[in-house]
Amino acid sequence: MTGPDDVSLIAAALADGRLDPDRIVAILGKTEGNGCVNDFSRGLAVLALRGLLAPHLAVEKLDALPMVMSGGTEGGLSPHWIVLHTGEGEGDGPALAFASRVTRALHPSEIGRAAQAELVREAVGAAMNAAGISGPQDVHYVQIKCPLLTAQRAAEAGGDVSTTDMLKSMGLSRGASALGVALALGEIDSVADDAICFDTSLWSARASCSAGIELACCEIIVMGQSTDWCGPLRIDHGVMSDAIDAATVTDLLARAGLAAGSPRLRALLAKAEAARSGVIRGARHTMLDDSDISSTRHARGFVGGLLAGLAGTTQIFVSGGAEHQGPDGGGPVAMIFDTTKEETR
Amino acid sequence: MTGPDDVSLIAAALADGRLDPDRIVAILGKTEGNGCVNDFSRGLAVLALRGLLAPHLAVEKLDALPMVMSGGTEGGLSPHWIVLHTGEGEGDGPALAFASRVTRALHPSEIGRAAQAELVREAVGAAMNAAGISGPQDVHYVQIKCPLLTAQRAAEAGGDVSTTDMLKSMGLSRGASALGVALALGEIDSVADDAICFDTSLWSARASCSAGIELACCEIIVMGQSTDWCGPLRIDHGVMSDAIDAATVTDLLARAGLAAGSPRLRALLAKAEAARSGVIRGARHTMLDDSDISSTRHARGFVGGLLAGLAGTTQIFVSGGAEHQGPDGGGPVAMIFDTTKEETR
Amino acid sequence: MTGPDDVSLIAAALADGRLDPDRIVAILGKTEGNGCVNDFSRGLAVLALRGLLAPHLAVEKLDALPMVMSGGTEGGLSPHWIVLHTGEGEGDGPALAFASRVTRALHPSEIGRAAQAELVREAVGAAMNAAGISGPQDVHYVQIKCPLLTAQRAAEAGGDVSTTDMLKSMGLSRGASALGVALALGEIDSVADDAICFDTSLWSARASCSAGIELACCEIIVMGQSTDWCGPLRIDHGVMSDAIDAATVTDLLARAGLAAGSPRLRALLAKAEAARSGVIRGARHTMLDDSDISSTRHARGFVGGLLAGLAGTTQIFVSGGAEHQGPDGGGPVAMIFDTTKEETR
Amino acid sequence: MTGPDDVSLIAAALADGRLDPDRIVAILGKTEGNGCVNDFSRGLAVLALRGLLAPHLAVEKLDALPMVMSGGTEGGLSPHWIVLHTGEGEGDGPALAFASRVTRALHPSEIGRAAQAELVREAVGAAMNAAGISGPQDVHYVQIKCPLLTAQRAAEAGGDVSTTDMLKSMGLSRGASALGVALALGEIDSVADDAICFDTSLWSARASCSAGIELACCEIIVMGQSTDWCGPLRIDHGVMSDAIDAATVTDLLARAGLAAGSPRLRALLAKAEAARSGVIRGARHTMLDDSDISSTRHARGFVGGLLAGLAGTTQIFVSGGAEHQGPDGGGPVAMIFDTTKEETR
Repeated sequence: MTGPDDVSLIAAALADGRLDPDRIVAILGKTEGNGCVNDFSRGLAVLALRGLLAPHLAVEKLDALPMVMSGGTEGGLSPHWIVLHTGEGEGDGPALAFASRVTRALHPSEIGRAAQAELVREAVGAAMNAAGISGPQDVHYVQIKCPLLTAQRAAEAGGDVSTTDMLKSMGLSRGASALGVALALGEIDSVADDAICFDTSLWSARASCSAGIELACCEIIVMGQSTDWCGPLRIDHGVMSDAIDAATVTDLLARAGLAAGSPRLRALLAKAEAARSGVIRGARHTMLDDSDISSTRHARGFVGGLLAGLAGTTQIFVSGGAEHQGPDGGGPVAMIFDTTKEETR
Repeated sequence: MTGPDDVSLIAAALADGRLDPDRIVAILGKTEGNGCVNDFSRGLAVLALRGLLAPHLAVEKLDALPMVMSGGTEGGLSPHWIVLHTGEGEGDGPALAFASRVTRALHPSEIGRAAQAELVREAVGAAMNAAGISGPQDVHYVQIKCPLLTAQRAAEAGGDVSTTDMLKSMGLSRGASALGVALALGEIDSVADDAICFDTSLWSARASCSAGIELACCEIIVMGQSTDWCGPLRIDHGVMSDAIDAATVTDLLARAGLAAGSPRLRALLAKAEAARSGVIRGARHTMLDDSDISSTRHARGFVGGLLAGLAGTTQIFVSGGAEHQGPDGGGPVAMIFDTTKEETR
Repeated sequence: MTGPDDVSLIAAALADGRLDPDRIVAILGKTEGNGCVNDFSRGLAVLALRGLLAPHLAVEKLDALPMVMSGGTEGGLSPHWIVLHTGEGEGDGPALAFASRVTRALHPSEIGRAAQAELVREAVGAAMNAAGISGPQDVHYVQIKCPLLTAQRAAEAGGDVSTTDMLKSMGLSRGASALGVALALGEIDSVADDAICFDTSLWSARASCSAGIELACCEIIVMGQSTDWCGPLRIDHGVMSDAIDAATVTDLLARAGLAAGSPRLRALLAKAEAARSGVIRGARHTMLDDSDISSTRHARGFVGGLLAGLAGTTQIFVSGGAEHQGPDGGGPVAMIFDTTKEETR
Repeated sequence: MTGPDDVSLIAAALADGRLDPDRIVAILGKTEGNGCVNDFSRGLAVLALRGLLAPHLAVEKLDALPMVMSGGTEGGLSPHWIVLHTGEGEGDGPALAFASRVTRALHPSEIGRAAQAELVREAVGAAMNAAGISGPQDVHYVQIKCPLLTAQRAAEAGGDVSTTDMLKSMGLSRGASALGVALALGEIDSVADDAICFDTSLWSARASCSAGIELACCEIIVMGQSTDWCGPLRIDHGVMSDAIDAATVTDLLARAGLAAGSPRLRALLAKAEAARSGVIRGARHTMLDDSDISSTRHARGFVGGLLAGLAGTTQIFVSGGAEHQGPDGGGPVAMIFDTTKEETR
């Protein structure tokens, strides 16, 4: 895309029939804003997508279509769309499978607490069922968009909220969502309110969460593999143990037989964050002390550089804010790839 | 270092005799400022170094000691010192060799023009001789600190200057210095005034240049290999063709037999910049359109992430502003390493 | 507005009949982006406005409606809309009068040159006629949105362009537009190509120009006073000689009898910029040396603070990039006010 | 000053005898860094000052000399020094009087709590006595530099600390210091731990506090008026009720008979902050939502613009982080002025 409102490539695919609007399950976008509070590139992208799809979809269908925009293309990262849609395929499975679910609206007192994790746990299970994914071992990536607390919402709850700080509520909500995924996938057994954003030993290897002011429920997209699906696409994942864990990424690409720059790589989705410990392999980093650039921007550009070098492409969906999404300073990396050889991208 | 003014590690080495102040040839520092115009971390580091060394060195020796501070530890890069000093060694050469030279003060009308390149060419040759480096093929890294044009200096030249824009003069001065290195190393044959910062086909694979307001001459540090030197250290280099050229770095490390995280890696020095073409392997990057973060900061963090992942350390000397220092969007990478096996770092 | 896409106040005015969509002449918006290249708040605001007005206006009317979004509410400035619309009034004139015009599309070779100034001069004259403004002395504010040069446009012109630098072309285009206003209002006699963005002695006291990638013509809104108009609104202007020229603003408010916080003040529109001299009344400023924050952001917040304090409101339309719009470091300030006493705002 | 390390004007005053190093009581500096965590302009200024004064003062005297550097010259603010020194004067008092005191080192468990406020209360009283200031009504400005909590300090206290978040500890420490001033001046009666940074109804009209990692005690400079002192200088203060409260500043200047640009104004010292309410006189501000620029930078530039316009000079000591220093969104403003007429500055 040439800008956040450039939907021309999707429009072209709709126009020539490559894309059936009714078969779009979700749209992810990496847009070029700052990825923080005042990132208007995300809203602009969504408004442009809605304008494009409005003539094709009934308004209730359009409203229910998950659109997850992740701001921040620091360094050489390149803005791009990832459109998840179904189609007619062939060949043997198991193949890439996905489905989405939304929870009911959360009561403000539930946001950022174990109650949210529980709702997410249920919805992940429902989405797994809907996608025909038979068990946790076949889930490779769960994208969640979840609500945050505003002053107004906190007032509705009579002050019984996890925090009164809006920015902090974003982290708590992301963290609660990630722990909900961990519950659903059997990565942890239980969640207590006070462990959220505190006990860094609890995390999911497959959660990617973002918080937004525009919703009151949690939107969940589960991606995995299922024998019910066929076609050339597969998905796999790994977990970077820190921001410079090249070996995990190299192994992941190798398992799929992907060389750098291969057109068979269709999407690379990762979380990045600055280690709260303040060090990477014993050496001090300065991301948390920089009052000019948010640490999330630093982390996306830095991890993005490594991923881009190893994958040979800059179209990488790296997002920040990785509470309970992988270990402190590290994060999950998922890869969607095509098993068909020598296809041009 | 725990901050730009933390010289305690160097102080400790002076105190216990590991470091003889008279044998220090140059000090490089990667400090945590923004690496741009208003980066005070560089000045603070130099002031702290001068305070440390003042009791040990005569003032004229201290004034002549090259101290090259490069601001910007974006992403997970870690602030660190690189102290070049000689000592007693053993074993066979060729081994790491280095020497520094300064040119005479430049007339303002020479800055950013072919005249500067010529002065640098001469000084690089003189430093090569001083280091006992027998030919251009044995030079692997040339660090240059060069002057810029201020309004006052432009006035002294009666307006006969390459530019009246101070920021632009930094680029022209770096570019002229790099082309001076290219001349000295036979990488190009000649330089015309109007090719500087214009003809991107001209570049050196071994130049790393920065411009500073505090000097009127060019300070030059040449590093290479010489049969006159011995000891365990070696130097090698490669040229990244773009910001995600992992293969060049992997090859460089492999030639030295270095695995990620090896304590045998002593220094990794690289240049990074945003491709002026606006694309990396055909995909749009947004570094040049970001009015919140300088493209040099983006580029250092992004390339730094790749280098750190491949080398397994975040103590990497990546600097920005790479005019004529490698191809557009790429840049030289030099590596100092220890041939001694299993030494602890 | 609660965000760039919050058009609810305009929607409410449309809904209850206070605003007739056919009588809207122009919409100005102060939005909360960075006001620089990657400011997506402007595009988001325009997309939201178009979505709001699409059911009310034929597409060609909507396309022709000037929407001028100025990014940047630094410091305590408050995002807000200014909707220029006509209505039925009474009382004696002269009263606030306005009209808009667009020039033909500019050839890329004309952008940033005297040819552009000439086109603007003609269009300002035409808009004055359309607004019934009898002479230059009755013009108080001219808002212009003008094109810039992209690589593609420069190629169309076969390289015969004022600059090949996109950012620089924005300044040249704004400067040429401002000098076109100065020509139309008799503030200067002639413009040569090489005076644009060079000869700071040439400027208009009433021009406010911004450049945008989305248009190829110049959009012009002229505001002044006319005996053909009636109603309670008036307009006046002054020129700040530097960034701290409080006296000019105090005088302007006093001429209208406005105390700080008066509900009779309807709009305050100003230009702000960092003095290229580097000093304000002899004391050094640091806006041009700050690589973390654009000087335009510094200038808007600083001048905005003074204007807000004197006017007693933070809803002030301060925009940056003031080439030939007032003297170096200063800028025009226009004020729309209501002569009706004691009206509540 | 031309940069944070430019002490040439102070050096000149020492050289020609205008300044006696033994009579310097404190040095304040407004430097051009970001005023946040990674502001190295402050450290650079202090290192340069120490280098200048070291030949003149015994090391224990130099160590005890308060040097308060405030980073951030946003907008058109101009970096400058304020040197408080005594001398021989004449004429009648009461005149400007000042003295400094330091508290004992704080135990980490005391930082940001009522215990700190109590220590500050005592020290303010002692400094008032030392300065010959007879009562709270004659105190117009109290500058405090106080410690913060690091991970190491928190560990020393066995976890019994006000917060484990370093940035938050800066706010708590500033807040506790300000409330200590309020206690000393009878502006409040008592302080409870949990009121600090929470109960915004408690504040001092004369406190200006900053927190720094380099000290463990609180350094306190009290300025006021005393009949024991003579000479031409006086001090007065007001409290801005919000960021655009021009009337308070106008009144303050009028009480001293100062017109804009008067050379009789010797120093203007103010605190600025973004209103946590999110609004200024009912209109939304965006300072707290800007992830690119810290709200403290926005607030300094905005309030600085108003002060500079009213005072007619950009050499204004505006600092951020105003917990309990004036009401939410407002802050104290103190003015040192010369009663001698027509003196050239």
